[in-house]
Amino acid sequence: MSSPLHILKLGGKVIDDNALLTQVLQAFLQKDGQKIIIHGGGKRATELSEQMGVPARMVNGRRITDSAALDIATMVYAGLLNKNMVAKIQALGSNALGLSGADGNVILARQRAVKEIDYGWVGDIDQVNAEAIDKLLAAGFTPVFCAITHNGQGQLLNTNADTIASKVATGMAALYEVALYLCLDKNGVLLDPKDDLSVIPQLNAADYERYKLEGVVSDGMLPKLDNAFDALAEGVKKVIICGPQSLIQGGGTTIL
Amino acid sequence: MSSPLHILKLGGKVIDDNALLTQVLQAFLQKDGQKIIIHGGGKRATELSEQMGVPARMVNGRRITDSAALDIATMVYAGLLNKNMVAKIQALGSNALGLSGADGNVILARQRAVKEIDYGWVGDIDQVNAEAIDKLLAAGFTPVFCAITHNGQGQLLNTNADTIASKVATGMAALYEVALYLCLDKNGVLLDPKDDLSVIPQLNAADYERYKLEGVVSDGMLPKLDNAFDALAEGVKKVIICGPQSLIQGGGTTIL
Repeated sequence: MSSPLHILKLGGKVIDDNALLTQVLQAFLQKDGQKIIIHGGGKRATELSEQMGVPARMVNGRRITDSAALDIATMVYAGLLNKNMVAKIQALGSNALGLSGADGNVILARQRAVKEIDYGWVGDIDQVNAEAIDKLLAAGFTPVFCAITHNGQGQLLNTNADTIASKVATGMAALYEVALYLCLDKNGVLLDPKDDLSVIPQLNAADYERYKLEGVVSDGMLPKLDNAFDALAEGVKKVIICGPQSLIQGGGTTIL
Repeated sequence: MSSPLHILKLGGKVIDDNALLTQVLQAFLQKDGQKIIIHGGGKRATELSEQMGVPARMVNGRRITDSAALDIATMVYAGLLNKNMVAKIQALGSNALGLSGADGNVILARQRAVKEIDYGWVGDIDQVNAEAIDKLLAAGFTPVFCAITHNGQGQLLNTNADTIASKVATGMAALYEVALYLCLDKNGVLLDPKDDLSVIPQLNAADYERYKLEGVVSDGMLPKLDNAFDALAEGVKKVIICGPQSLIQGGGTTIL
């Protein structure tokens, strides 16, 4: 039987809330077994763009990663956020090591093909190098991924952090018993979006289809749940949709 | 007999010259044995400060690292420069892995004590974790250090890249036969600062004292040469002061 690996994807407001982030990390790091953390961007990249006078480029309501935006993403995600999070985790007693996909060639991506929209320097993941990640785990490090990858030819690429989390989880599933925690703002998948206590404790595929038809689950939650079910289909043992509070106290929605 | 470890400190204009940087890295990576790269900041941090409207704070002609300056250093050194350099080295076929001192707790520093000047978030190195760095080398990675460290309590610190290079070199000298290459703008230590061909091929301590008295060597070169002689005294086998061209073609000044 393979040993447990807990993978935490941090998104939403917790990235920008220093005290809450500490609590969430502390709770997560207490879990038995190996750990990996993947973090999103928070609002700092947008703030920096404004401060630099670099406007966000949008086409048909989609954000485009031009060269200036890629530099900002690289600075904020791989620099400011990643290194501060690594220093914080070190202070909590775990041997964190920050990674972009370029570091150790852990995530190889390719620039998204231009169809209706040219997204610019956005990467779709080709390959997660589970062996390299496992070497880092075996050496006692706790990998902390930011949402920057590379194409193997010297080009960095902006990549969706949820996708990184599910690809890393499925990539590691051959070696470990993987539990993937998707930490969002809400405490889990809610029956009533206005009631943070209406967390659905367990969600299977049939219920998910029904909730979609009924409109209980919608918008931003759909791709996250689709990713979650895909991850389970590809060997991940457990996916938990949670929020900072449910991660700290236990709870959230377990996807079955 | 221990195996060779080549450590390259990249500073000066080469950081901002993409084509030259590729050539220099290519030449360095061809050396037999393990490799470590340490890079300075280049001019991008200053440009970003200006673009963000954050003035550089100076006291008595010394630059102060206030919180805004630390964030900028972290973004540019650990993010933009480090990740682009790692991606470039990956493209050149070596398995680069970028590090701040916080990553894997490889360099522990403490905030510089306030005497005449409060330098702000500037770190003096307490300890290089040679064992952790060696684990990365043993796992097949080529560590690429930026000039950011941490204090172990969650605080990042801006740290001189030359000091990082010599501390990493002396820290690794117990495990490897270390050669330290300090790549500056000039081709080496020059007899005539105006003649780039007047490289002194070898420099020992007695000649260094004489050149200092004669004023041949002065200004910014002095701390670099002091560091070089200290590194030799602490077990580093060879220190070479070179420039991009002498690194590519062979040459520079070997410190004895």
